[in-house]
Amino acid sequence: MAQINEHYRRLAAGYLFPEIGRRVQAFQEAQPDAALIRLGIGDVTLPLAPAVVEALHTAVEEMGTEAGFRGYGPGQGYDFLVEAIREHDYAARGIALAADEIFVSDGSKQDSGNIQEIFGAACRITVTDPVYPVYIDTNVMAGRAGGVDAAGRYAGITYIPATEANGFSPEPPTQPADLAYLCSPNNPTGSVMDRAKLTAWVAWAREHEAVLIFDAAYDAFIQDPELPHSIYEVEGARECAIEMRSF
Amino acid sequence: MAQINEHYRRLAAGYLFPEIGRRVQAFQEAQPDAALIRLGIGDVTLPLAPAVVEALHTAVEEMGTEAGFRGYGPGQGYDFLVEAIREHDYAARGIALAADEIFVSDGSKQDSGNIQEIFGAACRITVTDPVYPVYIDTNVMAGRAGGVDAAGRYAGITYIPATEANGFSPEPPTQPADLAYLCSPNNPTGSVMDRAKLTAWVAWAREHEAVLIFDAAYDAFIQDPELPHSIYEVEGARECAIEMRSF
Repeated sequence: MAQINEHYRRLAAGYLFPEIGRRVQAFQEAQPDAALIRLGIGDVTLPLAPAVVEALHTAVEEMGTEAGFRGYGPGQGYDFLVEAIREHDYAARGIALAADEIFVSDGSKQDSGNIQEIFGAACRITVTDPVYPVYIDTNVMAGRAGGVDAAGRYAGITYIPATEANGFSPEPPTQPADLAYLCSPNNPTGSVMDRAKLTAWVAWAREHEAVLIFDAAYDAFIQDPELPHSIYEVEGARECAIEMRSF
Repeated sequence: MAQINEHYRRLAAGYLFPEIGRRVQAFQEAQPDAALIRLGIGDVTLPLAPAVVEALHTAVEEMGTEAGFRGYGPGQGYDFLVEAIREHDYAARGIALAADEIFVSDGSKQDSGNIQEIFGAACRITVTDPVYPVYIDTNVMAGRAGGVDAAGRYAGITYIPATEANGFSPEPPTQPADLAYLCSPNNPTGSVMDRAKLTAWVAWAREHEAVLIFDAAYDAFIQDPELPHSIYEVEGARECAIEMRSF
C-alpha cells in the first residue's frame, strides 16, 4: 500500500501563496466592485520591457529555423549563457568563477526549494524572520522542521528576527545551525545586507562548517554602489556559500 | 556542520544524461570531423512548427503591453489553460475531470522527478525495464532504492523486463510494490500499452492499494485510434493513478 510523505501534514496552513490566492479570488467573486490593495503576494506590475520583447521575438524566430533551432542544451546550461553570467554577474565585480561552477536551472524559485535536497536530513536550518515561505516549507516537507506551534513556527528551525534595531539585517545565530538561508535584497523586507554583515555571516559559516544559501534573486534592485550584489564579493564565501540568482 | 544527502552517493554513474553529454562533447572536441550517430539522449531534431512560432510571437506581444501582461498565475495554472487541457486532453476522450484535478507545472520532466516527494520514504518502487533514468535516480536520491549492484540495478527497486515476448509492455509485478512508474508511449522503447494491459495495471494497483504514476509525455505520437492516450480511459484509474502530460 502506498504511503504519503507524513511530513506534509506539518505544513502550517497549506502553502502560503496559493492560500492567499484562493482567499483573494473568493473575496473578489463575492465583492466584484471592491478595489483591493494586495499586501500578500508581491506580483509583478509592469509589462515586459521593449528590449526583452525584442530578444524574445528574435529567439522565437531562431527556434523556428533549422539553422537557429536548439534542442536540449548541456546539463549545466548553454555555454553562451554561462559565459554571459560569468562576465556580467561575476567578473564585472571582480569575482573569478570557473564555467563549471555555474549551473543554469529552470528558475531561482525552483532552486531555492530544491537545494535542500542535496543536504542530509539531520541538518539544522536557520532563517531570518520574516522569511520567504519556500525556504521553510520545503524543509518541512523534507522532515527537517519538527513540530509547529500555534504561531506557525517550527521547533526544528532557528528564526533570527529582522528588526528595526538590526536594520532588518540579522547577525548570525548563537544557536547551532548547519544551513542558513539568506536573501539579499530581502524578500519580504527589502533590506540589503552590507559588506560587514555578509562578512560576519561568512565567518560564522566557516567557523561552524555551515553552508550559506544566498538568494540574490533581487540584486537588480540594488542602487547603492557600496552594497554587494554577490556573496562571493566577500573573501572566504566560496568555501561556504551557494548563491542563487535570477534573470 | 552541514552534512550532504548520503543517498546521492548511491547514484550509479552520476546522472546518465549529463554523463552522455560530457562524453559526446569530449569525443567531438578530440575528433571534430567525425560524424556522430547519437543513440543516447533522444534530442529533438526539427525546428518549432510555424503555428508554435506564431503563437509564441503573439504571446510575447501580449506580455509587452499593459493590457495583455500576465503576472503570477493561479497556483494550479491559468484557468484558460486548465480548461483547454480538460477539453482537448480529456473531455474529447470521454473523460470528465474537474478543473481542480489538473495541475499545470513547469514541465513533465520536473514532475516525473518531483512526484515521488509526496510519498513516504518506505514506499517500494517498481519500473519497467529499460526505463527513463529520472524515475530511478530521483528515488535513489530520496533513499528508496537501496544498494546498487555491478550492473547498476538497485536492490530496493523491482525491475519488470520489457521484452519482445511481452510486446515491450510488461504485466504488473508479482513482487510487492507500492508505486509503479508506467510510461506510454514508452521512453525508451516506443511501445504503447493497449487497453487490456492498462486495465491489468489498474486492477493490480487497486488490489494492492498501490499508486500508478503514468507518464503520457509522448501521447502525441500515438496514431492507432484503438490505443489509449490517457490512463483515465480505463475505469477505476481515477482511484489509483496520477497522470503526467506534456505539451
